[in-house]
Amino acid sequence: MRVELSALTKRLQEQAPPRVAVAAAGDTPVLEAVAAAYKSGIAVPILCGDIEEIDTCARRRNLDISPFEIIEADSPAQAVSIAVSLVRSGRADMLMKGLVQSADLLRAVLNKETGLRKGDTLKKGAPLSHVGVIDCPALGRTLLCTDGGMVPYPDLKTKVQILENAVRAAHALGIGEPLVAPLAAVELVNPDMPATLDACALAMMNRRGQITGCVVDGPLALDVALSAEAAKHKGVDSPAAGKADILLFHNIEAGNSTIKALTVVGGCLQGGVVMGATAPIVLASRSDSMESKLYSIAVAGVVSGG
Amino acid sequence: MRVELSALTKRLQEQAPPRVAVAAAGDTPVLEAVAAAYKSGIAVPILCGDIEEIDTCARRRNLDISPFEIIEADSPAQAVSIAVSLVRSGRADMLMKGLVQSADLLRAVLNKETGLRKGDTLKKGAPLSHVGVIDCPALGRTLLCTDGGMVPYPDLKTKVQILENAVRAAHALGIGEPLVAPLAAVELVNPDMPATLDACALAMMNRRGQITGCVVDGPLALDVALSAEAAKHKGVDSPAAGKADILLFHNIEAGNSTIKALTVVGGCLQGGVVMGATAPIVLASRSDSMESKLYSIAVAGVVSGG
Repeated sequence: MRVELSALTKRLQEQAPPRVAVAAAGDTPVLEAVAAAYKSGIAVPILCGDIEEIDTCARRRNLDISPFEIIEADSPAQAVSIAVSLVRSGRADMLMKGLVQSADLLRAVLNKETGLRKGDTLKKGAPLSHVGVIDCPALGRTLLCTDGGMVPYPDLKTKVQILENAVRAAHALGIGEPLVAPLAAVELVNPDMPATLDACALAMMNRRGQITGCVVDGPLALDVALSAEAAKHKGVDSPAAGKADILLFHNIEAGNSTIKALTVVGGCLQGGVVMGATAPIVLASRSDSMESKLYSIAVAGVVSGG
Repeated sequence: MRVELSALTKRLQEQAPPRVAVAAAGDTPVLEAVAAAYKSGIAVPILCGDIEEIDTCARRRNLDISPFEIIEADSPAQAVSIAVSLVRSGRADMLMKGLVQSADLLRAVLNKETGLRKGDTLKKGAPLSHVGVIDCPALGRTLLCTDGGMVPYPDLKTKVQILENAVRAAHALGIGEPLVAPLAAVELVNPDMPATLDACALAMMNRRGQITGCVVDGPLALDVALSAEAAKHKGVDSPAAGKADILLFHNIEAGNSTIKALTVVGGCLQGGVVMGATAPIVLASRSDSMESKLYSIAVAGVVSGG
């Protein structure tokens, strides 16, 4: 199904907008994004960082940040720590990266005492993962792509967790029982291609009730996952053929390049959210368009309430 | 630069069209493709296979195969062997797969006594590789993508050969000094991501004159390789940024999914050719469109003369 920015915006406008704690907010592009999100009624920012820097950045673009709560921090590290604690204590609903390294932010999120680890995540020693939300007008469908940005070479256990994170995001976005395609280069099981073997295991774990809330079928190549016609031509009979909601990639190279082909050439809108912690995390990239940043904030906002 | 089917067609019409030996030609879609190629003056088929089967398939679609030479074979294996020997003896310029497994055709190609191995290929014990030729109207550029279909997990040595095969194809297609992007998920060198390390080695081998006829720069993520704007946003300075002609993928999952995203969603036309033997080989897939099959035949035809 299609998950459009306009629909998410409408949904968020109808409720108390989620509060987003911005870690190290002294960054012009980030302030522009959260100011625009506030203006369209999809998020209420709480800015953590150096107040003077934040003011300077805001003035540079004539941004009105007067409605926003600002919490002073002496350093980016302290800003991160404050932002994480706001989410931990329930004063904010989600976290957003400002002018700080992703690794530093995620380390604070994963801190066992003060971070945002989930019980089960803690037990499994388990990963945060990135869910790319790729809205594709040409297909009339929105694809949740994982993981093209965070977990480079997931083994089967990790793929299960990555998949569960994506299913949670799909449910929050209104995709009731997402169809999941564990992707490979082929549809036939090939003992020499580990992607196809992992796909078999994931499909059977789904049938045996070990992975729930979705329908998993693979291995599938991307053309079959996206196009019913390609599936028919190839004679592949799969519930996910031409209808996959979640694309589970074998490795970061595949996920990353595919997402970029869909956005740079395919005209898709890219949003994304980090799942696996107690609250969603937005790690928008500097090179993302404003619309893309708003889409990420809207996705995280809806997920935070979902 | 752009390598359009119309331009290749024009080029082939102006010369004696290449002769294509079709191995196990008793297959309706293959006959349709070569009949169309003949009609547009880009190839002259020589059909190897069971004459009755070939006739039956042709009649099914009212195809006029009367101008084509047909060489009788008792079995698909014999048809393959005849087709390969036609190319080996110079009676045909290129090879095309009919109703036979790719693996069987390629085994015959790689046969040391009767196949189409090159001297240097033989010495290195080295691979045939697939070059996807993806003509992309949205970018106004044609991308040579390798390897999304044949060599699953190339090591560095194999990547060098795969790259050399793609450079040869680029030269034949008129791309004088192709810009090559060895792709990864990031532009920074990351000791934990082998794709980035291979990219460094390939770039330096190019600077040291070990890889010639092209300019190699990487690691690059796909957005930077395709879009100068993305490169600018990310602050990446690379000769291949926004201008890459050849995309070298780290593994088959990345190549395969990216090519399919470009074609299924991005509206690109997909052709392809197997390089590395003494003559180009067309392995069109049943699910390819007619235009896509013609593009593959035209690419192989131009490469056979290049």
